Amino acid sequence: MSQKTYRISLAGLQRDLPLCAISEHTDIAAFILLGDVELTVACARELLQKVPQDFDIILTPEAKSITLAHEMAKMSGKPYVVARKGAKLYMPDPISASVQSITTAHPQTLYLGQDEAAKLTGRRVLIVDDVVSTGGSIDATIALAKKAGGIVYAQATVLAEGDAAKREGLVYLGVLPLFSR
Amino acid sequence: MSQKTYRISLAGLQRDLPLCAISEHTDIAAFILLGDVELTVACARELLQKVPQDFDIILTPEAKSITLAHEMAKMSGKPYVVARKGAKLYMPDPISASVQSITTAHPQTLYLGQDEAAKLTGRRVLIVDDVVSTGGSIDATIALAKKAGGIVYAQATVLAEGDAAKREGLVYLGVLPLFSR
Repeated sequence: MSQKTYRISLAGLQRDLPLCAISEHTDIAAFILLGDVELTVACARELLQKVPQDFDIILTPEAKSITLAHEMAKMSGKPYVVARKGAKLYMPDPISASVQSITTAHPQTLYLGQDEAAKLTGRRVLIVDDVVSTGGSIDATIALAKKAGGIVYAQATVLAEGDAAKREGLVYLGVLPLFSR
Repeated sequence: MSQKTYRISLAGLQRDLPLCAISEHTDIAAFILLGDVELTVACARELLQKVPQDFDIILTPEAKSITLAHEMAKMSGKPYVVARKGAKLYMPDPISASVQSITTAHPQTLYLGQDEAAKLTGRRVLIVDDVVSTGGSIDATIALAKKAGGIVYAQATVLAEGDAAKREGLVYLGVLPLFSR
């Protein structure tokens, strides 16, 4: 299999991202931090330098950005919370918000348990994601933070894809084009 | 809401786990590493001391054990791979294995892309999970490792729940009882 790739430089590191069809006419470059410790640590460090330092807590959507949020929490000494893709048995009365992700075939809903939601209430929330493209996923994460009574203080992503690079207030380390097939 | 909890000591730390009903007659204690940097790091360190040191690569199922695998990879200098709960657009021709998890309402299937599967081929794989209960999730992860041509070298979990504590070859840091309601 000789898959086409797109070379990207991020936080001082280079990676060749495989191109994947998302429609008959368009490819996207797949960016997967899971399994890449070196890149995750480097991106976490660099993103933290670009956001306001006085946020209180990080909120990230499951699953590809979990290790990024973990590293950013570890480096900053601030807590983090993961918005889950499904309601879990351990979440009594979860709150939820809907998502349409460019890399997933079906629409998704994000959930927080009441005790996790309570951690966000009245706090300055830093929203963290790995890739923002259509904005569906980060918008759902923001909606969830607001439902929990959190103050959406800043939004940070490793990569802004396509029009997301023009998104107001979005902090990012690099841009990712969409590719015509 | 005054939820019942179960106090556990793990890797030198104490946590109060909320009890959740999984049936009319049984509660389980919910153990969530996501969002708990301190416990994740401590458990990763302690688990690495209990497994054979000459494994080649870590495989973990999405999602609750991702940060544990990330930390174990970081500390050991070995790579890790995450078995995903859904086939993603970035995975051409994924391989898969089925899962029934005690904390999730519906059966799940785990997936690996061809390039991730190739990383396991012929390698000594350390299977990592956060909680092993019925064994459905870890068994599916093992099946996936074997499908990829990996050698299942060791199995490690933070907590063994119920009968899982008797499971042959399973390395764990603590046991979790099931609770009658």
